[in-house]
Amino acid sequence: MSDHSNYRPLDAMAYPRFAGIRTFMRLPHVTDLMGVDMAVVGVPFDTGGTFRVGARFGPEGIRQHSMLLRPYHPEHPIDIFKQCAGVDYGDLPVTPGYLPESHAQIEAGARPLFAAGVIPIFLGGDHSVSLPLLRAAAATHGPVALIQFDSHGDLWHGYFGGKDTHGTPFRRAVEEGLLDTTRSSQVGLRGSVYDQADMAMSQELFHVVTAVELHEIGVKETIKRIRQRAGHGPVYLTFDIDFVDPAYAPGTGTPEVGGFNGAQCLQLVRGLAGLNFIGFDVVEVMPAYDPAHITSLLAANIVYEFMALIALQKQT
Amino acid sequence: MSDHSNYRPLDAMAYPRFAGIRTFMRLPHVTDLMGVDMAVVGVPFDTGGTFRVGARFGPEGIRQHSMLLRPYHPEHPIDIFKQCAGVDYGDLPVTPGYLPESHAQIEAGARPLFAAGVIPIFLGGDHSVSLPLLRAAAATHGPVALIQFDSHGDLWHGYFGGKDTHGTPFRRAVEEGLLDTTRSSQVGLRGSVYDQADMAMSQELFHVVTAVELHEIGVKETIKRIRQRAGHGPVYLTFDIDFVDPAYAPGTGTPEVGGFNGAQCLQLVRGLAGLNFIGFDVVEVMPAYDPAHITSLLAANIVYEFMALIALQKQT
Amino acid sequence: MSDHSNYRPLDAMAYPRFAGIRTFMRLPHVTDLMGVDMAVVGVPFDTGGTFRVGARFGPEGIRQHSMLLRPYHPEHPIDIFKQCAGVDYGDLPVTPGYLPESHAQIEAGARPLFAAGVIPIFLGGDHSVSLPLLRAAAATHGPVALIQFDSHGDLWHGYFGGKDTHGTPFRRAVEEGLLDTTRSSQVGLRGSVYDQADMAMSQELFHVVTAVELHEIGVKETIKRIRQRAGHGPVYLTFDIDFVDPAYAPGTGTPEVGGFNGAQCLQLVRGLAGLNFIGFDVVEVMPAYDPAHITSLLAANIVYEFMALIALQKQT
Amino acid sequence: MSDHSNYRPLDAMAYPRFAGIRTFMRLPHVTDLMGVDMAVVGVPFDTGGTFRVGARFGPEGIRQHSMLLRPYHPEHPIDIFKQCAGVDYGDLPVTPGYLPESHAQIEAGARPLFAAGVIPIFLGGDHSVSLPLLRAAAATHGPVALIQFDSHGDLWHGYFGGKDTHGTPFRRAVEEGLLDTTRSSQVGLRGSVYDQADMAMSQELFHVVTAVELHEIGVKETIKRIRQRAGHGPVYLTFDIDFVDPAYAPGTGTPEVGGFNGAQCLQLVRGLAGLNFIGFDVVEVMPAYDPAHITSLLAANIVYEFMALIALQKQT
Amino acid sequence: MSDHSNYRPLDAMAYPRFAGIRTFMRLPHVTDLMGVDMAVVGVPFDTGGTFRVGARFGPEGIRQHSMLLRPYHPEHPIDIFKQCAGVDYGDLPVTPGYLPESHAQIEAGARPLFAAGVIPIFLGGDHSVSLPLLRAAAATHGPVALIQFDSHGDLWHGYFGGKDTHGTPFRRAVEEGLLDTTRSSQVGLRGSVYDQADMAMSQELFHVVTAVELHEIGVKETIKRIRQRAGHGPVYLTFDIDFVDPAYAPGTGTPEVGGFNGAQCLQLVRGLAGLNFIGFDVVEVMPAYDPAHITSLLAANIVYEFMALIALQKQT
Amino acid sequence: MSDHSNYRPLDAMAYPRFAGIRTFMRLPHVTDLMGVDMAVVGVPFDTGGTFRVGARFGPEGIRQHSMLLRPYHPEHPIDIFKQCAGVDYGDLPVTPGYLPESHAQIEAGARPLFAAGVIPIFLGGDHSVSLPLLRAAAATHGPVALIQFDSHGDLWHGYFGGKDTHGTPFRRAVEEGLLDTTRSSQVGLRGSVYDQADMAMSQELFHVVTAVELHEIGVKETIKRIRQRAGHGPVYLTFDIDFVDPAYAPGTGTPEVGGFNGAQCLQLVRGLAGLNFIGFDVVEVMPAYDPAHITSLLAANIVYEFMALIALQKQT
Repeated sequence: MSDHSNYRPLDAMAYPRFAGIRTFMRLPHVTDLMGVDMAVVGVPFDTGGTFRVGARFGPEGIRQHSMLLRPYHPEHPIDIFKQCAGVDYGDLPVTPGYLPESHAQIEAGARPLFAAGVIPIFLGGDHSVSLPLLRAAAATHGPVALIQFDSHGDLWHGYFGGKDTHGTPFRRAVEEGLLDTTRSSQVGLRGSVYDQADMAMSQELFHVVTAVELHEIGVKETIKRIRQRAGHGPVYLTFDIDFVDPAYAPGTGTPEVGGFNGAQCLQLVRGLAGLNFIGFDVVEVMPAYDPAHITSLLAANIVYEFMALIALQKQT
Repeated sequence: MSDHSNYRPLDAMAYPRFAGIRTFMRLPHVTDLMGVDMAVVGVPFDTGGTFRVGARFGPEGIRQHSMLLRPYHPEHPIDIFKQCAGVDYGDLPVTPGYLPESHAQIEAGARPLFAAGVIPIFLGGDHSVSLPLLRAAAATHGPVALIQFDSHGDLWHGYFGGKDTHGTPFRRAVEEGLLDTTRSSQVGLRGSVYDQADMAMSQELFHVVTAVELHEIGVKETIKRIRQRAGHGPVYLTFDIDFVDPAYAPGTGTPEVGGFNGAQCLQLVRGLAGLNFIGFDVVEVMPAYDPAHITSLLAANIVYEFMALIALQKQT
Repeated sequence: MSDHSNYRPLDAMAYPRFAGIRTFMRLPHVTDLMGVDMAVVGVPFDTGGTFRVGARFGPEGIRQHSMLLRPYHPEHPIDIFKQCAGVDYGDLPVTPGYLPESHAQIEAGARPLFAAGVIPIFLGGDHSVSLPLLRAAAATHGPVALIQFDSHGDLWHGYFGGKDTHGTPFRRAVEEGLLDTTRSSQVGLRGSVYDQADMAMSQELFHVVTAVELHEIGVKETIKRIRQRAGHGPVYLTFDIDFVDPAYAPGTGTPEVGGFNGAQCLQLVRGLAGLNFIGFDVVEVMPAYDPAHITSLLAANIVYEFMALIALQKQT
Repeated sequence: MSDHSNYRPLDAMAYPRFAGIRTFMRLPHVTDLMGVDMAVVGVPFDTGGTFRVGARFGPEGIRQHSMLLRPYHPEHPIDIFKQCAGVDYGDLPVTPGYLPESHAQIEAGARPLFAAGVIPIFLGGDHSVSLPLLRAAAATHGPVALIQFDSHGDLWHGYFGGKDTHGTPFRRAVEEGLLDTTRSSQVGLRGSVYDQADMAMSQELFHVVTAVELHEIGVKETIKRIRQRAGHGPVYLTFDIDFVDPAYAPGTGTPEVGGFNGAQCLQLVRGLAGLNFIGFDVVEVMPAYDPAHITSLLAANIVYEFMALIALQKQT
Repeated sequence: MSDHSNYRPLDAMAYPRFAGIRTFMRLPHVTDLMGVDMAVVGVPFDTGGTFRVGARFGPEGIRQHSMLLRPYHPEHPIDIFKQCAGVDYGDLPVTPGYLPESHAQIEAGARPLFAAGVIPIFLGGDHSVSLPLLRAAAATHGPVALIQFDSHGDLWHGYFGGKDTHGTPFRRAVEEGLLDTTRSSQVGLRGSVYDQADMAMSQELFHVVTAVELHEIGVKETIKRIRQRAGHGPVYLTFDIDFVDPAYAPGTGTPEVGGFNGAQCLQLVRGLAGLNFIGFDVVEVMPAYDPAHITSLLAANIVYEFMALIALQKQT
Repeated sequence: MSDHSNYRPLDAMAYPRFAGIRTFMRLPHVTDLMGVDMAVVGVPFDTGGTFRVGARFGPEGIRQHSMLLRPYHPEHPIDIFKQCAGVDYGDLPVTPGYLPESHAQIEAGARPLFAAGVIPIFLGGDHSVSLPLLRAAAATHGPVALIQFDSHGDLWHGYFGGKDTHGTPFRRAVEEGLLDTTRSSQVGLRGSVYDQADMAMSQELFHVVTAVELHEIGVKETIKRIRQRAGHGPVYLTFDIDFVDPAYAPGTGTPEVGGFNGAQCLQLVRGLAGLNFIGFDVVEVMPAYDPAHITSLLAANIVYEFMALIALQKQT
């Protein structure tokens, strides 16, 4: 039997944080799921990107800057790894350049995690990866509520002739019945769009808090609305890093000005404590466009906030 | 007769946004003004810069990052190019190193645009270019109201012995009677100055909302004050990118800390809808100091907001 | 009838080189091929990339740094645009994320250029684009000699299960009979490979000058061998920028140390004057990895050297 | 007797701000303390850094970007150098790699400044330098109140076996009786910690306003609390640049997301006018991680705000 | 018994090279030495740095860019991992800021590797780490020949009062009898020095080929001289990345212009095949000063050349 | 009488090289010329730039990276500051944006240096500054030989209508009789030009070694030719950093590929020892385009080589 008491980060007092192999937070790299409560899983796929590309290096960037994280979260407060066993599961295999094949690989790679009762935190990759991840989630949990932080709805029918891209995953997910849209929210939508129908689609399918609305009503009211909508059923949270303002997260594929700052992001995620999360992802981190590394650092902190939510879930 | 139905961006569904010649938003590059409602015009002149230089590459940077823009503006809401025909007019010729000659070239280059009833959006260049642009504007429209977003008043008598620089254009403009100062505002002034007279000069000549005041009273109240002041006459809006905080716009010549974020910039410009705009500029973008490209991206979005204001004007 | 006397760069004495729309060398952007001798054509496709991606911005980067070029080549010597009419044809349409569809689009887009007797210079894009370009070339010219400057042979059967990538185009080209391998050369191969067969394949199919050999025998002897091999028939030259050492060209997808410097590149291309070129490409330029812009600058100069070869061809 | 009327920056009207030797604000480099009211002093020591290192170049970076500052502060308002004589004292000698030796050198170097009644502004260096600086301060002033802007309490017993690092200075300072903790505040604490005791320690010893609290209660209320606590006795202000959000100050050793913006920093420091300051430092600026130079620029402005506080003190 | 057939990199055909945890070349991370022939070992210590610092991130940078390496070396030629089992041993623990303590930790950490007959390749860290590594080597092998590629002799008595730094390791090593100086060489010395004695010291103790000499006599003659000197006894090779020219390796602590290119480095290392190597290090890689990542990439390739030397040794 | 024994760099053993005010090599900042043999003098003027601008920050960049230099030059060999007294004279005043006024200021500022028998080393600024510097030199020395390392001849009549720019100084200098063209050389010319006359002009007026010739005949032969030509009269050496290849010096205004490496630059300058130098400049260093700082570092080393030439002159 696996001794999950070792499934915690290296001790930074004995082994300085800049030392060691770059797993997330220097957690053990483990692919045996026995005794694992949560797992960080890379999904280095970016063939779905329609503007800048390079999110395949997102997992590398996020892991690299997760070195700065420490185990105790003072705001909830909770010592994360006293509540639950966490590991770095490594990356799922993909086939760069081949979207359908890769989506199949990603779904196949993610299914065992959900099936084993592990709560996975996926590191994208472009946003197209959320589709096979939701397929894998639904295989275990049935239709789930989606909480999507994003500057774009990603609900297009397709680009360039009906194809899947990082702009289409949630349209497909709705069509396939993977989502319980009555409990789902899209938060942070903004920026120019192709036509009037783009925004209408989001409004019709989901509960939407646009960026302009969020700036107007504030973080606390937004949290309240998301929670009310989400209810008690299973929830999958997807965080497109372009939700954040480009000043805070320049390293992404389709940055949109007029977004949110880091403190707001942390507060939003923390405010969702107590929902019934079954999986998370953070996507569209692109280190090649992140010269000061602040995008990867913020993404690592968002993953950390997810971990705290899981630890609180395991605690209760 | 020109068919202005083609004066809109390339179709991103047929031709991905990263493809094609870098005109602004991939608008047609046209120098025949027939049938044109608005024109983006580069003014790559930076000999007026007193600290960092390189705004001559501002038009290149802004055009490059305008690729991300889409035609429909969901906040007003309006499909810009269904309301008006837009083109990229290219750059005005200048003589680097020679300010008076270049100012003459810029004025001569800009006059036909105003004369033809086109609403131009100029991409600087350093802020000295606003002087010849205002001369050209006044030739058609007479004295205009100035709405200036800027961290500096740019009202110095001169630097280094009575000379024109990017710190002097509006002093010259006032002296030459190009401005209706009773309807003009300067917004965002801040930072250390040379002496007490610097601020006094702005207060005396214009309606001023300093950065500290704007942080105090908020964006909505500021909009109200600018609108009240501006009235119904012709308005020229000049946006010095150093109005924005260096975290959001590091790529500029004389950055001043303590500024504004991207969302505030968008809200301020949107809030001016309905004023009688006859021209716009965005100046002091310096790509060599913009490693994450966020300055150019924000500037492109500000140009886009200007376009939406024009479309609304044409609509009504 | 088109007046090709205008098919030359803007006059830098009237219009400074930093001004104007970023076509290659500020040539006219023309898609009517009448009267055109040579055309610069972007192919912004990078779904074939197996490591870093982002070559879709290669055409943007190369055009941007072509501003520094001037029309007279003192080494041959020749005034390029007095000998031939050159234009920037823009970019071919592609479908990002979809390789077979894009290859079809690229081939269809390139065919009319060859058919019209224009000598095209393609700006990649990853190296997978050479395959549809060779298909288009062969449609007009039949099997052509390939002169390939590259650190990799790009002759793999496939990656990840038989698929096309940027590592496979010339294997496919050989299989399809697009190349006259008896007249073809691969120059600059180096670096670690997957197994012994990798190098053997190149040696078997082509005349090979490895990087170690080129360092040993020198540029002049290498030129002699390539020329002898190429003979008098039609030649297609493909230049993968990773032929160059990473110190000179860091902005590429799979950089290999131990390569060549800029002077050697220029000398190699110049030394091929007089061969019967029917097309050129320069591929794998990736601006996001090129912080000092030297990769794009060198690539623009290589394009310029190609232009000089064409001008010499037209002259004789 | 020294003529301190020269102890002011070079005249930017005669000598452009980009010209001249890089002392802080181009103040005279003087080590004779006669007639000096305030002195900028570099402390280029960073051996105490536990994650990223390089704060030894902090003084270089801050001086370099201080070129943009001008003598008149319009918000207080005050012409700083009409009220007091300021110099750049250069850097204190240190021994890189040797913490105890360097701390002794720093203390010895700083003592004469306090003893002479000069108000020093130290440019770190990592935060470990505050310990010898407080020792030097206490030698003249006795225990002082500490106002610490920081995302970390820096109160650890030690790292890696009882050693001094940049995470321990204030624990040592408390133990040595250098601080009047009843008048001291720590402001901005946030982020993950090692265990529960970390935060408890701060709460026990100091008045603490965490980052989450500051976001909640606002800048004005925070100022009020700090002022109440500080009272009338001597105050030393230490500003760890990681108090600021990484979007505004990426160039630091242990960045923490969820921090504050530049305007808030300026307002906080300005709000402390009238306290009895006897010394200041700004630490942890790391130019190698500051590609857009905004960290150094903000730090230079914070130094400038300190200067204004001193000038106000000298005025009254 | 350990099955070392798994001690080879992940299969890049199944699992793309950009995927997976960043061990060197994606070798298994193993700390059990049974069945291991060679081990990559990080030594993230940089407190010995006297100018720029940050080599503690050297192992991270080198591992990150080792992803591009493939198992077959076509020049020797040899399939490395068919000849020997290689692992990534992780990083040795160190105490940042504390040189003597860290040197003791490094020596203790390295001894078991030499004792087990593994050939280690250490990734620095600053050059001070070579001293404890040579102590560990000598404990097993007795005095070894040193082959040092470096722009500096690193033979100073001390800096700043008799202390150990990255400029002193080989002086200490000579004093402690760790080196067989009669078989040792220093190659590449250049640049300004403190006084005449600096160079004399190297000339006296070692066989020296200065950079100017190497440029004059060439790589082949240099190899011949090093080999003649080294003879048949045990050899330790230390490669300070500042041996390379700053154009090829800007990311280092004390760059010296006038150095060597990448091809020369590879040729020099390859030319030493057949010597009796017992250990290697590559030091002074500093990713924070390496914006195009070419320093880390070159260092990874140098490690790869070391691996090939080991594989050849194991083969014979 | 001035005690020039202090006119040497700070002692790096007492005061680490990263500490202290950034004068060149940390020489005393002195404007009294008594007892001074050589002076480093900044000329931060860049209004003459016709493409990229920003050479006004050249002196800052070069001084900043001169920290790495040490006093003993092992190749000549000579301890520079034992032979001669050196100071940093600071920067000459200029008026940015105003070329004729600035040229007058530069000439006036430089004249006293030549008149006092000091050998100045000027740090540009763009290449237009060489014209007023040569005027100042000729005022003391009469017509001087020019040795110009440059990729461009800078002999244009003018740009944009007869104006002075950085492309015209030597045409003016010839017209004004400042040069002894019979003893002058231009070395390194290359790249595309506007027309045939450009190269002809250089060939007619000067002894020219083009880049292609230099690559062919080598450094030693080139030195021989320059020396023969220069003879025994007074010589002014101007070094445009774009002589160097962009891989070694990306931070410049009009980079030309196909240039020279750092080792060749050092060898070329060293080879001129014994000529009768009366002044030097190094120009066109542009830190904003130099992300890895290698351009500034190389320029600082070139200044150091000039210093060694002066020390040798003073010695004999």
